[in-house]
Amino acid sequence: MQPFFKNLLASNTAHGNNLCVGIDPHCENLPGYFRQEAEDDIHGFLLNFSKAVIDAASGKVAAVKFQSAFFEAHGDQGCLALRAAIHHARCQNLLAILDAKRGDISSTMAAYATMAFRYFNADALTVLPYMGVSVLDPFRTWLENGKGLYVVWISSNKDAAALQNSIAAPLLSSLADWCRLNQNQESIGLVLGATKLSSLNDQLLHKATQFGLLLPGVGAQGAKVDAKLQAVLAQSPSSLYPVSRGLTGFGLEAEGARLGKIAGWPAYSSYVGDRIQRFLP
Amino acid sequence: MQPFFKNLLASNTAHGNNLCVGIDPHCENLPGYFRQEAEDDIHGFLLNFSKAVIDAASGKVAAVKFQSAFFEAHGDQGCLALRAAIHHARCQNLLAILDAKRGDISSTMAAYATMAFRYFNADALTVLPYMGVSVLDPFRTWLENGKGLYVVWISSNKDAAALQNSIAAPLLSSLADWCRLNQNQESIGLVLGATKLSSLNDQLLHKATQFGLLLPGVGAQGAKVDAKLQAVLAQSPSSLYPVSRGLTGFGLEAEGARLGKIAGWPAYSSYVGDRIQRFLP
Repeated sequence: MQPFFKNLLASNTAHGNNLCVGIDPHCENLPGYFRQEAEDDIHGFLLNFSKAVIDAASGKVAAVKFQSAFFEAHGDQGCLALRAAIHHARCQNLLAILDAKRGDISSTMAAYATMAFRYFNADALTVLPYMGVSVLDPFRTWLENGKGLYVVWISSNKDAAALQNSIAAPLLSSLADWCRLNQNQESIGLVLGATKLSSLNDQLLHKATQFGLLLPGVGAQGAKVDAKLQAVLAQSPSSLYPVSRGLTGFGLEAEGARLGKIAGWPAYSSYVGDRIQRFLP
Repeated sequence: MQPFFKNLLASNTAHGNNLCVGIDPHCENLPGYFRQEAEDDIHGFLLNFSKAVIDAASGKVAAVKFQSAFFEAHGDQGCLALRAAIHHARCQNLLAILDAKRGDISSTMAAYATMAFRYFNADALTVLPYMGVSVLDPFRTWLENGKGLYVVWISSNKDAAALQNSIAAPLLSSLADWCRLNQNQESIGLVLGATKLSSLNDQLLHKATQFGLLLPGVGAQGAKVDAKLQAVLAQSPSSLYPVSRGLTGFGLEAEGARLGKIAGWPAYSSYVGDRIQRFLP
């Protein structure tokens, strides 16, 4: 079984880009057609939305990223829809990243590993490192079997800096130690907000590019695919920049009128397909 | 609607203790009777286990704490069992804490609030502060309606200290600011590992006791209900020390033989009831 980041690198190269399509089914202020479906059958809505986005992404990019919270908000029906959506993505040769940002002590992380990699069968999971890197130990067998982890290092939101700046260097260094010890460099990546690239010193940024990166913040959060981001992608070609609201329109006020005219999932899938093109090089 | 920690204080006082019964359905190395049920019907197993522990706790303590991961590992069935178990606990006049340690940016935290407080209808949720305290903003309306949050401050596991020590003081201070700004002091608590009390300086510990505390680590993780812990409980009487494996026996090797002789949930509920007595003052 190839390590996760080796697979991802091959697929990024084959598709000629580093875009990751984010699937965040925001359910607030949904335009008419979609609101009706969400009210009538939330499982159907979540799965149809996911499939429409996945079908638009298929053949264009290497990976999709599911924001777990927007499924979890709907309980068991969200859970079933998410599992079916991940299965659909993997059948379309897309790597499926489950963005659930779990973080707890080791015995609990073992249960989250079962959730992500057995029940959902995702290819990679995002985790929070607040409890230290040793809580990654229960994931080792999964990583040896091709699964991947993204450790949230520097998040895309503004207010995180006060806490994260002081621990950024020691966290990166203990994570590098963990990877060496476990010979797992190609299974572990970092989340690094694309909104934070210019505030990082060059030495730390260079160290970070030894990892595959997940670079959120492009689109609704204001970051752009600029020269700085492209330089990072060139240094770490197994990296991805996820775009969610910017592609799906859901949760974006400016897209309300356009989405209001769409009635039906095939038309919506075309809308997303057009938007994906805009974020490609 | 009374704030969460006001309710909790009243219930702790009425019960004359600060024990919180932890519900962590570990499914590894289950003794015979329970293994068979888990294999035949995982939803039934999770719900029957939870009910047996809840019935043993009812009337003795103020609160139960559900470790979300052990339910999530079973997907939609775990999700349904957890919701039914939380409902059962609340019907038995127990406050239900959902220990799910969610942490993400604000727009995502709003969806986790829906998950915890609308779908599961828990009384309180644990959250990770890695993204900064401003991500608590989406919880405000829920807090005004009697729900509570526990922000993980200092966790019970050993290896967390390297990261958490340097940010402990600034995090506590920005959290206190957030509470003042939002007039929410009685809805926000802290997770503080009972294993870490003696390593904290007195000034920081005193500041922490201005909050209701959740003090994990008693039992399987080695902390005891000693003079230090009792002094903290006296200073912050709306605090709780959760015990999970130490009460339920599941996940504890030393209890395997005794649990192997139990066949049936009523007998198991008595076993837990006896163990609860040992952790009471």
